[in-house]
Amino acid sequence: MKIGILGTGGVGRTLAAKLNSLGHEVVIGTRNVGDTLARTAPDGMGSPPFKVWHSQNSKVELVKFSEAASFGEMLFLATFGDKTLASIDMAGKQNFDSKVVIDTTNPLDFSKGVPPKFTVTLGNSLGEQIQKQIPNAKVVKAFNTIGAHIMVTPMREEGSPDLFIAGNDDDAKKKFVSLAEQMGWENVIDFGDISQSYWLEANAMLWIHYGFKYNNWNHAFKLLKK
Amino acid sequence: MKIGILGTGGVGRTLAAKLNSLGHEVVIGTRNVGDTLARTAPDGMGSPPFKVWHSQNSKVELVKFSEAASFGEMLFLATFGDKTLASIDMAGKQNFDSKVVIDTTNPLDFSKGVPPKFTVTLGNSLGEQIQKQIPNAKVVKAFNTIGAHIMVTPMREEGSPDLFIAGNDDDAKKKFVSLAEQMGWENVIDFGDISQSYWLEANAMLWIHYGFKYNNWNHAFKLLKK
Repeated sequence: MKIGILGTGGVGRTLAAKLNSLGHEVVIGTRNVGDTLARTAPDGMGSPPFKVWHSQNSKVELVKFSEAASFGEMLFLATFGDKTLASIDMAGKQNFDSKVVIDTTNPLDFSKGVPPKFTVTLGNSLGEQIQKQIPNAKVVKAFNTIGAHIMVTPMREEGSPDLFIAGNDDDAKKKFVSLAEQMGWENVIDFGDISQSYWLEANAMLWIHYGFKYNNWNHAFKLLKK
Repeated sequence: MKIGILGTGGVGRTLAAKLNSLGHEVVIGTRNVGDTLARTAPDGMGSPPFKVWHSQNSKVELVKFSEAASFGEMLFLATFGDKTLASIDMAGKQNFDSKVVIDTTNPLDFSKGVPPKFTVTLGNSLGEQIQKQIPNAKVVKAFNTIGAHIMVTPMREEGSPDLFIAGNDDDAKKKFVSLAEQMGWENVIDFGDISQSYWLEANAMLWIHYGFKYNNWNHAFKLLKK
């Protein structure tokens, strides 16, 4: 499958490398290709400069947001939450039409330090805002309560975590789940339509507070069912 | 230990019976003892009339809210969320002073059917409202993302769920955890101070939506840690 990823940080890179290793054609999109390749310092989250990663993952082409969105049959949003809507605008909203768009982002404000502040209210989650911005796309909220390394290697020593998803389109959710299964996910919980994004984004705050309090980022939720 | 439980519904009864069976002195509080004993129909959640339960659990004395609050060294709030603050007022705020108060409630409005609506906003969770109402008490948010039967029999076929707690007083949390261990809990996650109530109450909404969507109420969260 042709996959376009928006965002060149840890999440975007990790998803791109894994999906490419599974045989998919993957491009990774950024605001400005030249700027991204010119960086020589680690990014805000401590990831090495993009070109270092890219030298080891050269099959993943670095392109503009608009080219990534236009290229992919399935798209992943992997920008900072406070940049996601602007990134979509920059990518050209029409490029999302009819596509399955996986929203991995969270509505977080890191400007006052960590833990970050939560920036949305009930009924206006980031997942819902994105779906409203690109109404012809099929947005699936997913992967927003785990670190990038767990997205692509879900199995934990303590068991198999659950993949929490939400979205309005059942067929889009099916397509994403099929891809997630290729990535090693065994258990999916579909919480319902995109309005459930609010609870998934709130759940990310539990995940984040745990991470900062216990300095552990290898954690992932599981819902025991019986 | 002397334990006072506020609320005679499924949660209050289940906790009372279990804690009594563990050797604790337990009273269960209600707004009006005569009214509670006079009921002959199941309550709004389908539980049998209180007197049926009480005939099998006669060691648990039924008393007024104020007597339950005054009696217990540790108190459990087990009313409907929209009645909790009024129940505390009725019980006499001074009766909560210095006590460990376990808040099992959720800020839910069932008036428009199910799933219920969430009624609080960030920074004003029910747990925080309760702590503000009884500032000399040591409120611990706990047990709000599981059904009553799991509170007292935590082990699931699929594993041992996590007991999520939050509260300002470390000693109070320790005392509650010690009691929870007697009830069979093995894993506790302390998310921090009472402001974390918001995320725990939001987490209850994920739990509730799952329950209604899949008609399964035997579910409980676990946080895989490695």
